[in-house]
Amino acid sequence: MDDQGTTARLSITCSDKPGIVAAVTNFLYNHGANITSLDQHSTDPEGGTFFMRLEFQTPGLDIARPLLEKTFAEAVAERYEMDWRISYAADRKRIAIMVSKYDHVLFELLWRWSRGELPAEISMVVSNHPDLNDAVSNFGVPFHHIPVTPETKADAESRAIELLKNKVDLVVLARYMQILTGHFVNTFPNRIINIHHSFLPAFIGANPYRQAYDRGVKLIGATAHYVTSELDMGPIIEQDVIRVSHRTSVKELKELGQDIERNVLARSVKWHLEDRIIVYGNKSVVFS
Amino acid sequence: MDDQGTTARLSITCSDKPGIVAAVTNFLYNHGANITSLDQHSTDPEGGTFFMRLEFQTPGLDIARPLLEKTFAEAVAERYEMDWRISYAADRKRIAIMVSKYDHVLFELLWRWSRGELPAEISMVVSNHPDLNDAVSNFGVPFHHIPVTPETKADAESRAIELLKNKVDLVVLARYMQILTGHFVNTFPNRIINIHHSFLPAFIGANPYRQAYDRGVKLIGATAHYVTSELDMGPIIEQDVIRVSHRTSVKELKELGQDIERNVLARSVKWHLEDRIIVYGNKSVVFS
Amino acid sequence: MDDQGTTARLSITCSDKPGIVAAVTNFLYNHGANITSLDQHSTDPEGGTFFMRLEFQTPGLDIARPLLEKTFAEAVAERYEMDWRISYAADRKRIAIMVSKYDHVLFELLWRWSRGELPAEISMVVSNHPDLNDAVSNFGVPFHHIPVTPETKADAESRAIELLKNKVDLVVLARYMQILTGHFVNTFPNRIINIHHSFLPAFIGANPYRQAYDRGVKLIGATAHYVTSELDMGPIIEQDVIRVSHRTSVKELKELGQDIERNVLARSVKWHLEDRIIVYGNKSVVFS
Amino acid sequence: MDDQGTTARLSITCSDKPGIVAAVTNFLYNHGANITSLDQHSTDPEGGTFFMRLEFQTPGLDIARPLLEKTFAEAVAERYEMDWRISYAADRKRIAIMVSKYDHVLFELLWRWSRGELPAEISMVVSNHPDLNDAVSNFGVPFHHIPVTPETKADAESRAIELLKNKVDLVVLARYMQILTGHFVNTFPNRIINIHHSFLPAFIGANPYRQAYDRGVKLIGATAHYVTSELDMGPIIEQDVIRVSHRTSVKELKELGQDIERNVLARSVKWHLEDRIIVYGNKSVVFS
Repeated sequence: MDDQGTTARLSITCSDKPGIVAAVTNFLYNHGANITSLDQHSTDPEGGTFFMRLEFQTPGLDIARPLLEKTFAEAVAERYEMDWRISYAADRKRIAIMVSKYDHVLFELLWRWSRGELPAEISMVVSNHPDLNDAVSNFGVPFHHIPVTPETKADAESRAIELLKNKVDLVVLARYMQILTGHFVNTFPNRIINIHHSFLPAFIGANPYRQAYDRGVKLIGATAHYVTSELDMGPIIEQDVIRVSHRTSVKELKELGQDIERNVLARSVKWHLEDRIIVYGNKSVVFS
Repeated sequence: MDDQGTTARLSITCSDKPGIVAAVTNFLYNHGANITSLDQHSTDPEGGTFFMRLEFQTPGLDIARPLLEKTFAEAVAERYEMDWRISYAADRKRIAIMVSKYDHVLFELLWRWSRGELPAEISMVVSNHPDLNDAVSNFGVPFHHIPVTPETKADAESRAIELLKNKVDLVVLARYMQILTGHFVNTFPNRIINIHHSFLPAFIGANPYRQAYDRGVKLIGATAHYVTSELDMGPIIEQDVIRVSHRTSVKELKELGQDIERNVLARSVKWHLEDRIIVYGNKSVVFS
Repeated sequence: MDDQGTTARLSITCSDKPGIVAAVTNFLYNHGANITSLDQHSTDPEGGTFFMRLEFQTPGLDIARPLLEKTFAEAVAERYEMDWRISYAADRKRIAIMVSKYDHVLFELLWRWSRGELPAEISMVVSNHPDLNDAVSNFGVPFHHIPVTPETKADAESRAIELLKNKVDLVVLARYMQILTGHFVNTFPNRIINIHHSFLPAFIGANPYRQAYDRGVKLIGATAHYVTSELDMGPIIEQDVIRVSHRTSVKELKELGQDIERNVLARSVKWHLEDRIIVYGNKSVVFS
Repeated sequence: MDDQGTTARLSITCSDKPGIVAAVTNFLYNHGANITSLDQHSTDPEGGTFFMRLEFQTPGLDIARPLLEKTFAEAVAERYEMDWRISYAADRKRIAIMVSKYDHVLFELLWRWSRGELPAEISMVVSNHPDLNDAVSNFGVPFHHIPVTPETKADAESRAIELLKNKVDLVVLARYMQILTGHFVNTFPNRIINIHHSFLPAFIGANPYRQAYDRGVKLIGATAHYVTSELDMGPIIEQDVIRVSHRTSVKELKELGQDIERNVLARSVKWHLEDRIIVYGNKSVVFS
């Protein structure tokens, strides 16, 4: 599970057919790759969809990486019409964190990152408020203030896209309170992770913690998901809950909710960085 | 916590004012009651609502129960405009279980009851299908088959009300798949408990387990609540969840969901039987 | 995940070397097996131990099962010095349940089995007490009473071994309160599952629930494990906990502990029946 | 639940007798205190021990605090031989955090404190290593380096006691890796909180995470407790666990264990600061 400089990861999605695992593992074996982890999932043996995540060690490879990928495409991927990707643990992913004023999730990520728990480069923090500039800068991370008003929203998004596009591999919405347009979302497909509170049942409308309190819920939680153009309806990555009671005040509900948000988002970002998540349609397969 | 033949329980709801606890505990003390448990909750010290659950032992009482209640009403309850109730553990509550074809929750209750874990009398099982007659009768519990069709629905409800009214203290919907009318619900206010699956987020429409699978949820759960005229929106009593993954098939999701339903409903019924739940508006205060 | 009459499962343990996955999946592919699930785990890419669980569908096989196994042994398993096993979902495993007087775990298993949730045949229940004879017989399962006293312990074990040996594939200790000898345990290696309460920290000695209460523990739990000759120290299969508080009486702690035991053992038995568990040394790898 | 400048808290432990609640609440009512929360617990109605936590609002008091306490002692506490304490939310408790090199728990506390989530003053951090000086100072908290070697251990403890005694109300061992002497522990009775990992079962000896991995545990956890002279055996305040699998590496087990430690200790410290914990013998009653 631990990252090593020599680890590569292959993710595959395709229609399920006999022989896929054999074809892939043969190919890698014949080129000197040592497979150290393999997870596979089929939705249905007949006509279902096939997902695979495979970790292999690169030191014994008999060809360079670009050639490995080109050969794999021709020899294996095309035959099975695979959607596939190879990534290398040594190529650290670059993250942008977008945040408004709530800072609990932002600091959880910065803090874990500063302790070496997130295998990534945090390239920048982007906020529609200037408040967190100093605190972010103390971590040595560039801070960009892009104010957003109803009038400037389109311009602000353009500036953000300019900052992020091709500069980062993952955008984390750490309680960023602006709704993103479909254009923004489609610029980073399956590369924007959002976190929000979750309840059973859902409470629609303003002040959901007050509604949850008024209904006497016994569990509050949080969900991390990839952002799609349909608000908060993208593929779920991770969820968790904590028990509460009638004694838990609305203020305490919010604090506990923030604790859950911190942990759920941190786990989700880590799994994304380790290429453990394959998105298919509106579902995520998480090989955790 | 354990039931004893000598235990009485007093539940109180009223507007919060100084002196309530003193007035109540003084009254009981002066009449020889020994308070062995007291839970109290205020929504707000200023103008909030006050809830109290109090267990006391009756052997030292200096007056009979009816007089105790009459005196309490006059000396304490009226002054604070209390909504209150005294119940006695020795007066076992009578339960009716309503069920359709899914039997997992029904048997969990019958089984715990037969093991002495539910301090109640199970007076009858009512079902719109005849299938479970033999299995229920094996527990020594009367079984009533009341078929329901669109044409006979009104008559069937009337028959059920006739069977249940003044005969039972609690109606448990153990996966009873008929929607009850407002008339039925209002006949047993805060005395009908229902169980249903819960997800984060909620999935509206048919086959929610399939929808949950398709979205890749990581937690599935169940909620027990009192039934009000607004479908599945009554005061929540208890909730729980279990972790699942993309590997969990729809069939397995359902089985795990049933396990959660069994436990959540069993806990809820037990708390109701022990007078641990005070309903106020659409909220439940559970002194568990 | 769901059992089908055509599903076969291959479990492998061996020293990790390059090429294992390719060799195995090639072999199966070349003989017409359709791999529908594959889980693999390596403790270490260099010199570690390799575990694999693989489900495949048998309808397309080009050779009969005995020949498939013989050929696999010669063509693949010997080369990698594998410890391996193929089992077929259609060959239902036979279970014996051993029990004393606590019946909660026994009935959980019988009940799930009667509902079709356990893919097995429950061949018999063996008890050192006669009490549960009728209740077990009602499920249509043979009941054997083998009394145990200090004087007859050796004889009793011999009788039990005679009953069970070659007659059942799994022995479940459902709160069987007799300590088994090393001889008994070694007769059924990695085929005896036990359940017992667990606490953080462990409480040694008599009446652990009382000790847990006196220390104010906030979690109580249960552990299911394979039985080895060292008491309660065998490979762990599954564990779970539930929150408690100072309000939870010793009696309630025991009841909650029993609820956990029921669920943890039921999950463990199911995983064993589905060949999801590979034991290696004192560790279990559970491909759940 | 929320702290207010006008909130006072009364904690009581005594032998259970009829009339205690009435006597206490009468006394407060007669002096103008408005009771806003009351939790009570009896271990046994006959001859058991009685615990009570009561929050009241002070604005309407008819006497000053010292006189209130003196009068309460004479009028109520002596009669029932109570062990009791009144504290005021406005008098923020002073905390010292002791730490070695692991910094995850320290920073969780400093961070929550800097966000206003811990109602206390963090007076100082004491460490046997100089490493964390700068990071702590950035929070505006004094840092004291007291090196400890086998030769200087006694002197070092004396220096620490001198620093802490009468200067702080709570000592939090945030992964402080030195064993404290009975003398140190007895200087701060029930005022030292420690956090350590917990497993089911416990793993004695070096490298417990490696042992847990080798045994295949499915849950790892943490326990916060008050420190007594018997190592890690003091009254338990809070516990929590997280699920792991055979895929979780030893390094990941440690990271997950640290996440649990952070949350469990933070909750425990908060409850101590809010006077929610009553210690009795080796048990804690937590009115959370």
